[in-house]
Amino acid sequence: MDWAYQAGSIIRESFKKQLTIETKSNADDLVTNMDKDVERYFIDNIRKHHPDHQILGEEGSGDDVNSLEGTVWIIDPIDGTMNFVHQQTNFAISIGVYHEGVGKVGIIYSVVNDEMFHAIAGSGAFLNDYPLSKLSEVELEKSLIAINATWITKNKLMNPSKLIPIVDGCRGTRSYGSAAIELAFVAAGRLDAYITMRLSPWDFAAGKILIEEVGGTISTLDGTPLNLLGQNSIFAGSTSLHHHILKDYLHDSKS
Amino acid sequence: MDWAYQAGSIIRESFKKQLTIETKSNADDLVTNMDKDVERYFIDNIRKHHPDHQILGEEGSGDDVNSLEGTVWIIDPIDGTMNFVHQQTNFAISIGVYHEGVGKVGIIYSVVNDEMFHAIAGSGAFLNDYPLSKLSEVELEKSLIAINATWITKNKLMNPSKLIPIVDGCRGTRSYGSAAIELAFVAAGRLDAYITMRLSPWDFAAGKILIEEVGGTISTLDGTPLNLLGQNSIFAGSTSLHHHILKDYLHDSKS
Repeated sequence: MDWAYQAGSIIRESFKKQLTIETKSNADDLVTNMDKDVERYFIDNIRKHHPDHQILGEEGSGDDVNSLEGTVWIIDPIDGTMNFVHQQTNFAISIGVYHEGVGKVGIIYSVVNDEMFHAIAGSGAFLNDYPLSKLSEVELEKSLIAINATWITKNKLMNPSKLIPIVDGCRGTRSYGSAAIELAFVAAGRLDAYITMRLSPWDFAAGKILIEEVGGTISTLDGTPLNLLGQNSIFAGSTSLHHHILKDYLHDSKS
Repeated sequence: MDWAYQAGSIIRESFKKQLTIETKSNADDLVTNMDKDVERYFIDNIRKHHPDHQILGEEGSGDDVNSLEGTVWIIDPIDGTMNFVHQQTNFAISIGVYHEGVGKVGIIYSVVNDEMFHAIAGSGAFLNDYPLSKLSEVELEKSLIAINATWITKNKLMNPSKLIPIVDGCRGTRSYGSAAIELAFVAAGRLDAYITMRLSPWDFAAGKILIEEVGGTISTLDGTPLNLLGQNSIFAGSTSLHHHILKDYLHDSKS
């Protein structure tokens, strides 16, 4: 958490300077020099203190991680890069630490709003100094669900007809443009579920630990466990709602 | 702004207590005792300092305003009540002051994130102490647009087929669940446009002043001027993008 706070203050300082923005694979996938600098900062610190740990990072300057043996840090230096570039807010630093494949520490730091979501597996989850409650049961018609309008239109990854009844049936939908923040919000009870396509391990590694620590459930849209070494669709929520939506709405969706 | 800061600190204090939540017209339209208390706080202050001004407030304890003659305060004590109840964040105090129908002062205070968006017509717009720039031109394919997934599914207010090409054509969509915050984000350049249905004057009165002060455009989805005494669809954005979307996507939409 100290490293995240420190990186956060470097990021906030950077808004006073001009950012160099590169285009990664396409126009929707912006990457900035700041992503790279922040990842470098974490990697240098981890290597110094834990030379035997592996590091899986979005910007690729970590290790070529092929297994979850030992201790693996899974890092997204700036989750929500499009928000970072367009908004200078609503992005987060996301850090998940796994040991022998089991989540141990999850940290999601929403930098500009100064909200530190953190959990040590088995010891509770917190937003800043406040302990997060176990997620309570919620019915679909009283639920707030994070889902982006993109998935409700024709797209290559998901048949919208599976999702439209969920949008119609819930109380309201939101979309923040940072998977880490959306997962942290599920853990904090601010959202009752989150549905999205094609996330990489660094997008959800910390959120998974937070959500499971408060008794929530996270899986692919098929209900299968997440693969921490590949891309996944993501469906997270309070456990009873997760079961209900999976059974009655998503049962045979391709994801 | 002093009143908004003061009301904001009362609201933040309230999160330590249990809230009494009433259902207004339906389950999606929650109202809390806090909405009423905050509106009362503003009305008492306005009456004391400006006894000849009219007040139009969401909770109905202001005046029965039938014209925009003289000076009219248009107030939403808590815009984004569902967020207030579910999230305890992402809601705002919204205050627009009009004189003879012309916007003079716009204040949108995002309470928990402590972001004060404010404008005096003709004297500039600000986020906290930072002046907001005039909105720059942006192409649809590089734009970030606030639109809720609800409007992309079959609904009573809008034909989704008009909106889907906009969602498909832009860089990304967001939805925050507070019209005041979404309009403030347009004014701050964090969003390039915002599209929604059926807002009341207190939802957009302050945002209209902010957006126009930075050179943006706000209208109904037909492109007609907003009626400050009734409900409207809302389409706000940077002016060139607004013109482009209106001409090429929304031209004959019903709103």
